[in-house]
Amino acid sequence: MKKLPLPPVRRLVAQALEEDLAWGDITTDTLIEPSWRARGRIEAQAKGVLAGVEVAGLVFQTVDPDLEYVAALADGQRLDRGSLIATVAGAAASILKGERTALNFLQHLSGIATATASHVEVLAELETRLVDTRKTLPGLRLLQKYAVRVGGGHNHRMHLGDGVLIKDNHLALLRARGIGMSEAVARAKAQAPHTVRVEVEVQSLEELQEAIAAGADIVMLDNMGVEEMERACELAQGRCLLEASGGITFEKLRYVAGTGVDMVSLGRLTHSVQALDIHLELEPA
Amino acid sequence: MKKLPLPPVRRLVAQALEEDLAWGDITTDTLIEPSWRARGRIEAQAKGVLAGVEVAGLVFQTVDPDLEYVAALADGQRLDRGSLIATVAGAAASILKGERTALNFLQHLSGIATATASHVEVLAELETRLVDTRKTLPGLRLLQKYAVRVGGGHNHRMHLGDGVLIKDNHLALLRARGIGMSEAVARAKAQAPHTVRVEVEVQSLEELQEAIAAGADIVMLDNMGVEEMERACELAQGRCLLEASGGITFEKLRYVAGTGVDMVSLGRLTHSVQALDIHLELEPA
Amino acid sequence: MKKLPLPPVRRLVAQALEEDLAWGDITTDTLIEPSWRARGRIEAQAKGVLAGVEVAGLVFQTVDPDLEYVAALADGQRLDRGSLIATVAGAAASILKGERTALNFLQHLSGIATATASHVEVLAELETRLVDTRKTLPGLRLLQKYAVRVGGGHNHRMHLGDGVLIKDNHLALLRARGIGMSEAVARAKAQAPHTVRVEVEVQSLEELQEAIAAGADIVMLDNMGVEEMERACELAQGRCLLEASGGITFEKLRYVAGTGVDMVSLGRLTHSVQALDIHLELEPA
Amino acid sequence: MKKLPLPPVRRLVAQALEEDLAWGDITTDTLIEPSWRARGRIEAQAKGVLAGVEVAGLVFQTVDPDLEYVAALADGQRLDRGSLIATVAGAAASILKGERTALNFLQHLSGIATATASHVEVLAELETRLVDTRKTLPGLRLLQKYAVRVGGGHNHRMHLGDGVLIKDNHLALLRARGIGMSEAVARAKAQAPHTVRVEVEVQSLEELQEAIAAGADIVMLDNMGVEEMERACELAQGRCLLEASGGITFEKLRYVAGTGVDMVSLGRLTHSVQALDIHLELEPA
Amino acid sequence: MKKLPLPPVRRLVAQALEEDLAWGDITTDTLIEPSWRARGRIEAQAKGVLAGVEVAGLVFQTVDPDLEYVAALADGQRLDRGSLIATVAGAAASILKGERTALNFLQHLSGIATATASHVEVLAELETRLVDTRKTLPGLRLLQKYAVRVGGGHNHRMHLGDGVLIKDNHLALLRARGIGMSEAVARAKAQAPHTVRVEVEVQSLEELQEAIAAGADIVMLDNMGVEEMERACELAQGRCLLEASGGITFEKLRYVAGTGVDMVSLGRLTHSVQALDIHLELEPA
Amino acid sequence: MKKLPLPPVRRLVAQALEEDLAWGDITTDTLIEPSWRARGRIEAQAKGVLAGVEVAGLVFQTVDPDLEYVAALADGQRLDRGSLIATVAGAAASILKGERTALNFLQHLSGIATATASHVEVLAELETRLVDTRKTLPGLRLLQKYAVRVGGGHNHRMHLGDGVLIKDNHLALLRARGIGMSEAVARAKAQAPHTVRVEVEVQSLEELQEAIAAGADIVMLDNMGVEEMERACELAQGRCLLEASGGITFEKLRYVAGTGVDMVSLGRLTHSVQALDIHLELEPA
Repeated sequence: MKKLPLPPVRRLVAQALEEDLAWGDITTDTLIEPSWRARGRIEAQAKGVLAGVEVAGLVFQTVDPDLEYVAALADGQRLDRGSLIATVAGAAASILKGERTALNFLQHLSGIATATASHVEVLAELETRLVDTRKTLPGLRLLQKYAVRVGGGHNHRMHLGDGVLIKDNHLALLRARGIGMSEAVARAKAQAPHTVRVEVEVQSLEELQEAIAAGADIVMLDNMGVEEMERACELAQGRCLLEASGGITFEKLRYVAGTGVDMVSLGRLTHSVQALDIHLELEPA
Repeated sequence: MKKLPLPPVRRLVAQALEEDLAWGDITTDTLIEPSWRARGRIEAQAKGVLAGVEVAGLVFQTVDPDLEYVAALADGQRLDRGSLIATVAGAAASILKGERTALNFLQHLSGIATATASHVEVLAELETRLVDTRKTLPGLRLLQKYAVRVGGGHNHRMHLGDGVLIKDNHLALLRARGIGMSEAVARAKAQAPHTVRVEVEVQSLEELQEAIAAGADIVMLDNMGVEEMERACELAQGRCLLEASGGITFEKLRYVAGTGVDMVSLGRLTHSVQALDIHLELEPA
Repeated sequence: MKKLPLPPVRRLVAQALEEDLAWGDITTDTLIEPSWRARGRIEAQAKGVLAGVEVAGLVFQTVDPDLEYVAALADGQRLDRGSLIATVAGAAASILKGERTALNFLQHLSGIATATASHVEVLAELETRLVDTRKTLPGLRLLQKYAVRVGGGHNHRMHLGDGVLIKDNHLALLRARGIGMSEAVARAKAQAPHTVRVEVEVQSLEELQEAIAAGADIVMLDNMGVEEMERACELAQGRCLLEASGGITFEKLRYVAGTGVDMVSLGRLTHSVQALDIHLELEPA
Repeated sequence: MKKLPLPPVRRLVAQALEEDLAWGDITTDTLIEPSWRARGRIEAQAKGVLAGVEVAGLVFQTVDPDLEYVAALADGQRLDRGSLIATVAGAAASILKGERTALNFLQHLSGIATATASHVEVLAELETRLVDTRKTLPGLRLLQKYAVRVGGGHNHRMHLGDGVLIKDNHLALLRARGIGMSEAVARAKAQAPHTVRVEVEVQSLEELQEAIAAGADIVMLDNMGVEEMERACELAQGRCLLEASGGITFEKLRYVAGTGVDMVSLGRLTHSVQALDIHLELEPA
Repeated sequence: MKKLPLPPVRRLVAQALEEDLAWGDITTDTLIEPSWRARGRIEAQAKGVLAGVEVAGLVFQTVDPDLEYVAALADGQRLDRGSLIATVAGAAASILKGERTALNFLQHLSGIATATASHVEVLAELETRLVDTRKTLPGLRLLQKYAVRVGGGHNHRMHLGDGVLIKDNHLALLRARGIGMSEAVARAKAQAPHTVRVEVEVQSLEELQEAIAAGADIVMLDNMGVEEMERACELAQGRCLLEASGGITFEKLRYVAGTGVDMVSLGRLTHSVQALDIHLELEPA
Repeated sequence: MKKLPLPPVRRLVAQALEEDLAWGDITTDTLIEPSWRARGRIEAQAKGVLAGVEVAGLVFQTVDPDLEYVAALADGQRLDRGSLIATVAGAAASILKGERTALNFLQHLSGIATATASHVEVLAELETRLVDTRKTLPGLRLLQKYAVRVGGGHNHRMHLGDGVLIKDNHLALLRARGIGMSEAVARAKAQAPHTVRVEVEVQSLEELQEAIAAGADIVMLDNMGVEEMERACELAQGRCLLEASGGITFEKLRYVAGTGVDMVSLGRLTHSVQALDIHLELEPA
């Protein structure tokens, strides 16, 4: 759990195992004697980037503290078809009981790291950050955002309490009461912890200018075209960070980054994850 | 929560909200007065099948019991770009706090229902069932399997305790101790609850014959080609259910089903979900 | 925890210990120094069948990971008055704190295993299964059903999600809407997972015929007399499994089984448990 | 929940429902439309004393807040075969989903109240209290001890933290270090909260005298014969409370109480409970 | 719960009530009939600032949903000796059961708000913020930091994941590997989310210059004297925010703030709280 | 955890760590390599009494089971400025992650023990007990009451279920229904467990006489003056225990105890705790 906090990950793992094992494993318990030993090899079935190797180990250890789990690779390393990720040895029944849950974590997290890495590659040599969003799967945000970092991306806000992001919906409500963006930013700066930056979502260059004038630390350019973003960068002149957001396909990514925006945020890194194919090969021991 | 059990769904919703709201919403709490009211419209941004409309309602109700949430459509109904899914009215701040979590559920579950439905369409007029697997995302299995049903698919085992599935790994362990498939099936039938069926995974037609002779109720044809599956169906003659599994692309689905197998199982329905685009439009009230 | 899933049992054990120890043990904490060591012998005070020896060990290990617990017998073995079940050695104070909770599990689970075994003996040489029900004590179902298996019984459904059982109450509701048993069974077969069987409760031979014609996999004969059950077996001719249920006393069990029914279900195995007398003898060390 | 604390009972009810409903109710969800309404009558099938009527209501309310549950009797009232205990009306599917869990609570708690009441009757006109023990079923102590009170019994310690009971095992450990009963009682009185009494277990009249001299507030007479208990009462002369414990059958109870002991404790009230037969009759509405 | 997130506060309240009520209220349950009604007035016994009035309401509502709780004042309002804070009406027994827990929250949170406000008053007309720390009481951080805001203070980091604060311990570890402050700040800026600021703790003006040169957003001046802080402010010239920390007594606060630092952080606001005296007066109704 | 129950303390520690670490430690994870080792010394910065040394160890062990934590002193021992309390060695990153939470427990609990001890010293050579109350901080009662014992104080009731305390509010409600103190005490004695004593709160000597006549085991003298308490002691003549409560400052304590009351209860021991200054010094290893 090198850079993952153990207490919440333990809780997530225990909960995942309860889903699968709360009523036992009637196949294994019926057929496999507790004394039979085996050795499992966890291997990649496709190219990608590994994430979750320690989480998978925690799964096996939670099923049976006597299992020996040895990671062959570390999170962040490249996988080829056939790469050995880890081995697990001990009671065959215990390996079988943990297998699916361990793979479910590994496949999902490696899927995120892999997709993130392929986007990050596009940005090579640019200063633009690839960042995630709060469009995560319920209950999995901590791990999903970890996998984004493993893949070379950066995190945006973790939750509603660790950053100010004044969105169009906030602005609409404020405007209905006669409060403009400038006043909104001022209030946020006056009240939010000094440790976090204030970000404002804008739809146009006019709003961008308003945001900069108001002292926004970060401005999210919502669904702007590439040319508009270029003008935004010129206009901002480094007075605030600029985040491109909305409708940025893989194909467009390089062009968007080329405009000079500081970061590009992509919901699909976490809301539309393609699992990476990883399996466990068991051999009697 | 018509066909979803309330106690576990309540727990999942509370946990999802803790992820986002455990430390409050510093943007909203700073800018939006508790007395301001608004009305949100939840709308589809793409074609698909709705799933999770009641779960989303429970999210808003958990954030603020005074919010009024009205579903305009029911789970299973078709969505077009622009379809109104639900409205939520009350304290603007409360709507903003629940928005992301509600959408995260809706987008994921509707994504599953939509993909399932598009596969089920391919099977129209055939008797073949589309079934899910245990390749689900940790913590979300109950809801994911619900969304598969909403999309017209069927569920396979919920967990390791509600069905017997003797897989290749089990068989290898047994054979290493001189126990063949026949004996394995016999043991499973003797010990498992009479309420569940016994399924065996096979790699070849020889194994299929062995499984049928052993009295397997269901046989999983693992990664077989279409022709081999056809022969399997002829060979089985209805003495057991046949499940096609492994490597079945969307393109191959119709051919596989055409062989006469009783069900096709697809891990990607739940492990590689494309979120359906759904958003919430807020208007001051 | 050989055939019991560790994560949920850990949770149950922790919860049981919280009941007894949440506010400490004011007797032991006042009188017994942490450095004092002792050795406890857990012994049967009556004949029976052991169940829960690993659960009891987990209790002591949870109170104090330094306690050494050694099982002398395994679950399923016969106990005589005086049989040594396990020993536990280490800090005397820790043994005293875990004693009652460990014994409460052992006495209850061994009570279930013992009663189950005495019923199963009656069925010796018959093919009839003794099965449990969902009439379990809240929170204890997993362990109670485990103890039934330890005693030689079989499990019926674990919960409402792992088997279809169409009961008289379902049928009455359906009939009030003009839907007969035949249609009900057809719907259940069409929608339930293919991994589970469909069972129907009947009150008469006419209903049995209806159920068989409808394709029920299992039929529960509710509160039938022995002769009626005999006729039911003749009538079914193996086309479905038959379960005898309701009002089957210990004395009647052999006769009921003699009719040829496939299983007899008894709620009292889990709802009316006589604890087996087991105690812990402590000696200073 | 008149005299039961709501927060922990809510937790126990939610947990019991998760056991049964975590994966839905595939029978009911398949066959019973959410819009169908019904009315259930919960009735006693045997004579006894009611306990748990509010807990059962909380079960139904947790499954579906729209169910209307009306208790016809209150905890503590006598039941005859056929007595109406409560009615529940609303969505038929919701009633079916809560039925088993509600009855499991009712049958167990009423079983305890009934057995307690039949013992208490034996003590009529005597001052002797019938008290329970810590020999309860894991997770159910709060409710079991409540049911004992409902049946007219009294509670002994709730847990290890709310009373001092120096048992033979404590004394043996102390004696091995040269500490006698007198010193033990003195230490307990010096350190335990002043709000609780100090009880000592004795095996003989000599020990009883020692305990009284030491200032014990309560003395437990362990497994003494009736005559020895009589002498104990004479000897104590009201200087301490006397509790008879161990091996007291229903037949012996009156004789034991007749000796003048202040209380008789019975483990079987909670460790060996005979469920009271209660069922739910459903009628379509 | 206007600006407090409901799901986590509900959890904290339920947990607090379990502490007090898990085994019932044997005084109230023995003496007070469930039908007796009463009305309680919650009043301040001392001058101060109110915090927790909604939390207290949630306590009563959790004990008994039928209690009527009406807040007379809102969080942040001034209290005099005798000020009416809220009334609660309904079953007398329920009010008695919630009283202590409700007051424990109110007294603690109002104590924090009161002390915070008295410090904030000292800063009147200055721009210096009073901020809290992570020196909070385990389990209570969310509520404690809320109370600081109610009292007019600001929050520093909520937890280790929502801000970068490079402390002396970090720097010592880095220096031991030849990594200086400049490199440390650069790494933090490269990897931390762009939404949070990077703060560095310094012990001297030399380190302050190093931190500014490294691009630190905030610098914590650890245990500096007033004159040194003045020079720090001159030196910084607004290039970073300056936080005074360590050993700042109430008496010194004004002088420290007068140096021009942007914020003063005080651990004692949350780690050494003087409860505000608040009580509940009950009158039979 | 010598005299603290492990299961609930484990739960409290895990919860405290979730507060701080649920989203990781972005400073440490960014700057400190997992392989770097360090050694921390936990030292007192002020005189006092140690409490919580084992709890702090559990914090570090929960963050990282590989940390080596060695207590240099035991709870209850005196601390001077500079006293070494414990050392912790292992991964530097893990020490940094646990530091704040461990210190938060230590500082709070040692603060309680220290204040308790300074009050207890005043009572030296007197028989009067210093006792705590239920005015504890939500969620922390178990640990706070432990710290009171460590400081030489005694515990009053743990919760509403382990002692009878008839307060003025109870009496007012009873009187409104024509039930006097005498009847109230009689009812309580008849119904409460025999293991707990019955305490009554009185405001005057008349009420004290009434309480004694009613057979109260303990009488709480609420807010009486020193002379009135002296008369109360004469009047009681040891027929009941007397508890002085309300408005007893440190200065008055000796005088109050000198009256001969059996115990003095002080809410401030737990509701208004001054943290003891303790810090962790880290050195690279």
